[in-house]
Amino acid sequence: MVTSSEELLSALQWRYATKTFDPSRRIDPVTWEALEEALVLTPSSYGLQPWRFLVIDDPELRTRLRPHAWNQPQITDASHLVVFLVRRSIEAADLDRLIERMGALRGSPPERLQAYRQAMENDLINGPRSQVINIWASNQVYIALGNFMTAAAMLRVDTCAIEGFSPAEFDRLLDLDNTDYRSAVVCAAGYRDPADAYANQAKVRYEASSLIEHR
Amino acid sequence: MVTSSEELLSALQWRYATKTFDPSRRIDPVTWEALEEALVLTPSSYGLQPWRFLVIDDPELRTRLRPHAWNQPQITDASHLVVFLVRRSIEAADLDRLIERMGALRGSPPERLQAYRQAMENDLINGPRSQVINIWASNQVYIALGNFMTAAAMLRVDTCAIEGFSPAEFDRLLDLDNTDYRSAVVCAAGYRDPADAYANQAKVRYEASSLIEHR
Repeated sequence: MVTSSEELLSALQWRYATKTFDPSRRIDPVTWEALEEALVLTPSSYGLQPWRFLVIDDPELRTRLRPHAWNQPQITDASHLVVFLVRRSIEAADLDRLIERMGALRGSPPERLQAYRQAMENDLINGPRSQVINIWASNQVYIALGNFMTAAAMLRVDTCAIEGFSPAEFDRLLDLDNTDYRSAVVCAAGYRDPADAYANQAKVRYEASSLIEHR
Repeated sequence: MVTSSEELLSALQWRYATKTFDPSRRIDPVTWEALEEALVLTPSSYGLQPWRFLVIDDPELRTRLRPHAWNQPQITDASHLVVFLVRRSIEAADLDRLIERMGALRGSPPERLQAYRQAMENDLINGPRSQVINIWASNQVYIALGNFMTAAAMLRVDTCAIEGFSPAEFDRLLDLDNTDYRSAVVCAAGYRDPADAYANQAKVRYEASSLIEHR
């Protein structure tokens, strides 16, 4: 069941930022469940998972969100819509939550878990990274986005990542204002409309020789 | 050649942050070439690709980098080591470069390309996003990291993303100080040492029900 290089690359070549989704095609429940599990399995620094994923099923809510995303039709027309949330801050309670979960799942000795907790605290809360903790947390969410788009492509599910939206308006409409999370990025998923002109355009990437250098 | 949900999830379950690589096992050239192509194919906002990827082949250079990454053995022992670079700033020249490339690859009409260029300029250079352009650029690099780790897992190549390094020292040793790019994150790739104790530990993730919410 190992994927071949050809299979991987054909999926990544097939993928593009889908602008027009076929509103009549739904991702089947088994495939969608796999993509949700892929999100949950996303790796993160320290394993801290500073994220949540909102799947917007309600068509009426999607309609209300759309004008706050430059009225992009993907918001309402894609089979599924995920709003990637990021934690607003990283606190001692976040470390405790992870340590508790690690203890429960791995049965690690408490002294080892405490050393791990201390390392996180020294870095994320008391160290230099605490000065850029919002960048750090946001970066982690983009690992999830990258993983999600690649996982979807492997299953031949189309996606369109959307940064062109108003986080303030999304937060308001999603009742996030008084929570520990805020909207970071959005991704629509579903199936391309066969008439989407973008589907057949050449993929625009710089030459590998200008992006990759061996030292 | 479409991947099944089971195949995707078995790869993501198999993956873990490899701490001990088998220094004797090399990624074969065909597989590595596919992973480099996967990096090149990473999606980015506007297609701007604000990144470069340094593959550190020279064992002596790896030895010099290692002390600046908490002496982590992955730096020297993994088959391959990638330093993900991010552009220090986004300038008009970056937009021009993309527009030129789009024109060459797609033969799009110049007025359409100019409208696209203007939209990027209004957002990234003159809009509110210009205030957080370093976060924006860094986020894009983490899409590449997420894509890379997932692509590698599909091919059963082990990875370990590394944020625990000194970007200043890496930049110095990689002669990046007077360039448009800086070190953002590092990822080792290769094959796990069968004795790596972490390989058999339970994966620590929060319950799907606490990470994913349907609205």
